[in-house]
Amino acid sequence: MRHKRGLVIVMSGFSGAGKGTIVKHLFETYPDNYFLSISATTRNPRPGEQDGREYFFKTKEEFESMIEQKELLEYANFNDNYYGTPKAYVEKLVNEGKDVILEIEVQGALQVREIFPEALLLFVTPPSADALEKRLVGRGTETADVVAQRLAISARESHLMNKYDYLIVNDTVEDSVKEVHGIIQSEHFRTVRNEEAIKKIQEELKVFAKGDN
Amino acid sequence: MRHKRGLVIVMSGFSGAGKGTIVKHLFETYPDNYFLSISATTRNPRPGEQDGREYFFKTKEEFESMIEQKELLEYANFNDNYYGTPKAYVEKLVNEGKDVILEIEVQGALQVREIFPEALLLFVTPPSADALEKRLVGRGTETADVVAQRLAISARESHLMNKYDYLIVNDTVEDSVKEVHGIIQSEHFRTVRNEEAIKKIQEELKVFAKGDN
Repeated sequence: MRHKRGLVIVMSGFSGAGKGTIVKHLFETYPDNYFLSISATTRNPRPGEQDGREYFFKTKEEFESMIEQKELLEYANFNDNYYGTPKAYVEKLVNEGKDVILEIEVQGALQVREIFPEALLLFVTPPSADALEKRLVGRGTETADVVAQRLAISARESHLMNKYDYLIVNDTVEDSVKEVHGIIQSEHFRTVRNEEAIKKIQEELKVFAKGDN
Repeated sequence: MRHKRGLVIVMSGFSGAGKGTIVKHLFETYPDNYFLSISATTRNPRPGEQDGREYFFKTKEEFESMIEQKELLEYANFNDNYYGTPKAYVEKLVNEGKDVILEIEVQGALQVREIFPEALLLFVTPPSADALEKRLVGRGTETADVVAQRLAISARESHLMNKYDYLIVNDTVEDSVKEVHGIIQSEHFRTVRNEEAIKKIQEELKVFAKGDN
């Protein structure tokens, strides 16, 4: 039996760990199970992009008001533009029973935990630092300097791994996708997520209780 | 990737909830995955029973010394005989990387949590109190008085459901077995169970760290 509220699942981990690929395959393999959150941003829409589809497009003032009102699960600033996850939209999906996947960087992931404590935090890592370096170099899109910088950030982020709920050692995408799916499905059976079902059976059993209850 | 230490899984729940059947099918479906603990008891061996196979047979003095030395994960007294789970045997299996299933009553299950905090506690319940009553009556082996007594105990035990980690609403055995298997497999990926893997990658990444590390 499944409880009715959806889960918020934060996929995070080292840059180059393959979390984007895992999320992509997760949606392809289980298209009816998972939903992506839509981010808010202050960058300009590109041709063909629609407000509420690719992004929620906001002015700088609107975005900063959202920060102030704590309407964002997490946010960051890249190249002078804000990007963030609107809490209201995620809440809406979760209340509809949908499992929402957020793919975000490590700092953002830990912000989500503060605002949304029941969120599930998954950390994706390659099997070794060596494998991580090979993947970053192998992309061929980054200079040696950028690769070194990413690895330095990973070294720093590795000290936050213990703050996550689950560790996905991404050896093959197929295995990782199965693991992530299994973890999310199993989390639905946690007693803390099934308080209604527990209350229901407690109520029903009351008629059988002896005086000691 | 799997961590090396096995898990202790406590299957518990209402009398008549079907936990014995779930455990039986779990072993049949995944014979290589799970191991049963062997209980200690003070009752006399029956013909064909071997010490260390069906039970560890103990004298009353030996058993009470085990209680005193906290060598039991849980114990109870039925019909003037002690029954309990020896901690050393469970530790041995777990250290060999084996997932050990304990099928025990509610009070015993919560004793295990105290002595073995990392144990996984699963509570099995039928979908409703009505279904529970039907199953107890349907067995045809119990008098109406015994059924009433069991239901009264269930009413009392229902207030301890929140102390468990996971809730299995046992509608069909097949689904329940899949759920239990999925939960156990997923729990292996918890960061708290993978501290060695985390330390390994932290160590490896140190060479890439900048001065701020």
